[in-house]
Amino acid sequence: MMSKIDLHDYVATVEDYPEPGVSFRDISPLMGDGKAYKEAIDQIVDFAKDLDVDLIAGPESRGFIVGSPLAYALGIGFVPARKSGKLPREAVSASYTLEYGGVNELEIHKDAIRPGQRVLIVDDLLATGGTINATRKIVEELGGVVAGVAFIIELEDLHGREKIMEAGEVPFVALMEY
Amino acid sequence: MMSKIDLHDYVATVEDYPEPGVSFRDISPLMGDGKAYKEAIDQIVDFAKDLDVDLIAGPESRGFIVGSPLAYALGIGFVPARKSGKLPREAVSASYTLEYGGVNELEIHKDAIRPGQRVLIVDDLLATGGTINATRKIVEELGGVVAGVAFIIELEDLHGREKIMEAGEVPFVALMEY
Repeated sequence: MMSKIDLHDYVATVEDYPEPGVSFRDISPLMGDGKAYKEAIDQIVDFAKDLDVDLIAGPESRGFIVGSPLAYALGIGFVPARKSGKLPREAVSASYTLEYGGVNELEIHKDAIRPGQRVLIVDDLLATGGTINATRKIVEELGGVVAGVAFIIELEDLHGREKIMEAGEVPFVALMEY
Repeated sequence: MMSKIDLHDYVATVEDYPEPGVSFRDISPLMGDGKAYKEAIDQIVDFAKDLDVDLIAGPESRGFIVGSPLAYALGIGFVPARKSGKLPREAVSASYTLEYGGVNELEIHKDAIRPGQRVLIVDDLLATGGTINATRKIVEELGGVVAGVAFIIELEDLHGREKIMEAGEVPFVALMEY
């Protein structure tokens, strides 16, 4: 992907966060810079445009900052996968194991996805893939078809991509790899 | 604001949520519909374009779904005001009282706003104004200037708009009033 902007310049690396020995990749600087943010979203738009996508879904809450401008750019709707207990109407949930221990649950409104709709699932960062696979599980339970998955950053050593493909091969893009 | 789409048609009202006697206004259907979502964001773009805005700020997490496509549309950066303990680098915080009891805290990275930058603060829904005034307090502590505030929905009976103006008059828009 040729571009005058190198998105790597907009990633802040925080050492020993959230645990000793971990290098946390923070994309706040990317989101906070109009040109870099637009470049990142537009690169995912390029990936999405041949996938015949009906909806974007993203997990709470950084997935919202990637997914909602993408939905806007593509002229389609955005479906948030929220942490449990936040949605006011009937929802379907799935749980996943957190990268640093514990279990979390995501929920999507039951009427948010109609059977057969093609859903692109996005997040800021792919680590172990737990969040994305939980989102995918809900999307598929509602009858949606996962049209693809997209990330700003992929942490290759954590093998999240393999975990996603184990649940079924889907088009994949990550704008940066660490 | 003339439009072929009536945004009210995309608000789901949930009675007795989160407490008996409360009518919860849920904008999930609006976000989930490409045309309605684009119309709402574009109406805020119209409001913003004369305000000389440098950055959009929005509180976690529904403020992200309004603020980030707005930032993308305007070609500027998005600054999340996150719940406490989520940001990896040095942050400034402010607390606020929740509408249904309790206290919460929001945080913004210290380097996210430079002195003099003009910040438009947005959220999905204006209730008592606590979240917005906490976000505003942080923006101003970092030297930012509040260029305006924008909401999809304003709950007029809760007088949030007055609370905002008590902290200093700013340009205001709400796309729908209930």
